[in-house]
Amino acid sequence: MVNPFHQHLDELNDLLVAMARRVVSAIDRASAALLEGDTAAAEAVVSEDEQVNALQFRVDDRIIELMTQYDAVASDLRFVLGAVRISVDLERMGDLAKHVAKSVLLRAPAAVIPDSLRADFAAMGAAAVRIAEKLVGILEEQDQLQASQMSLDDDELDALQARIHAQLPSLGYGPQTAADVALLARFFERFGDHAVRVSHQVVYAVTGDVHLDRS
Amino acid sequence: MVNPFHQHLDELNDLLVAMARRVVSAIDRASAALLEGDTAAAEAVVSEDEQVNALQFRVDDRIIELMTQYDAVASDLRFVLGAVRISVDLERMGDLAKHVAKSVLLRAPAAVIPDSLRADFAAMGAAAVRIAEKLVGILEEQDQLQASQMSLDDDELDALQARIHAQLPSLGYGPQTAADVALLARFFERFGDHAVRVSHQVVYAVTGDVHLDRS
Repeated sequence: MVNPFHQHLDELNDLLVAMARRVVSAIDRASAALLEGDTAAAEAVVSEDEQVNALQFRVDDRIIELMTQYDAVASDLRFVLGAVRISVDLERMGDLAKHVAKSVLLRAPAAVIPDSLRADFAAMGAAAVRIAEKLVGILEEQDQLQASQMSLDDDELDALQARIHAQLPSLGYGPQTAADVALLARFFERFGDHAVRVSHQVVYAVTGDVHLDRS
Repeated sequence: MVNPFHQHLDELNDLLVAMARRVVSAIDRASAALLEGDTAAAEAVVSEDEQVNALQFRVDDRIIELMTQYDAVASDLRFVLGAVRISVDLERMGDLAKHVAKSVLLRAPAAVIPDSLRADFAAMGAAAVRIAEKLVGILEEQDQLQASQMSLDDDELDALQARIHAQLPSLGYGPQTAADVALLARFFERFGDHAVRVSHQVVYAVTGDVHLDRS
């Protein structure tokens, strides 16, 4: 792995890892802002999303550079194609963290989530952060085993979303609160979906098996 | 445009157009199913989403083929990179149509949307279909002008979503209905966002200007 092409692929992967690290930080702070009603933290998440986007532009530039400089074989091209998709998903995960933060700002100084669902949203936030942290490791190590198991982690977010929805009819919330809760639960659930997609791309880059991640 | 490489690029674009046509059909029938409570139509949308996914696999295969057979210049690579992203967005638009259809099935035989919001959702469906149809034309003709104006069409979906949300607190819906309405409005709004992203990729493929479509 010391030829110049593979060195460039490594640098490309480093950019994806850097994106994933920022996404960890974003979802971590967005979740905390949601639970604490911390508008300063929420504002920071919103403004720093620009850094994730900037990294995605660098991924694009690097890919064009790579493809014009080298004749790549199919397996390398799968990696490059995977990198394009991974950057799209990571950018979207950053957006979802931003959406959580924005909903805090939209309702402040009132809390977005009712006290009775606080524990469930704390669990969602914790699961999302854990998933994002795992994703950093998967990208850094190109860890196929962890990547193939990411959907198990994502099941937790799906289960929490289902649990929150199941409680909605009986908790007596007003329509505004119910709508906010449904959308917030969906932001976390989608965050997990994108993590699964990234993981499947890591598997695809190595095995060429694309029949994993679309439903 | 008659060299073999460009002929292959045209065929790649034909696959994207085919995806977009299926997305038009999906969102059209999903919207009708939503308004009419037509579960057969909703089931068809859900099962036929597989065809959109299958086309995306063909896009991937075609791209790998293209890149291994030819030395492309940067402008062609931008087109290829754009095609990867466009296929991701079109696949997602298909998913969103499927989500609308699934919510019909989830609540049947009850209606998902209350009568008082029927006109607004009819307007959302009509706008989404018009946007998707426009997208087919943009992809077919590589129409830069229409592509650059897509965000204006999308504004209509955003405005309808805002209108629906503004009505939520006063219409006296139960939490379940409010949650369903908020999610459905979001599916349509996201559908429009992805159409804007596709349009920006069409502009990017020609101009190389990527600083349009991320927020």
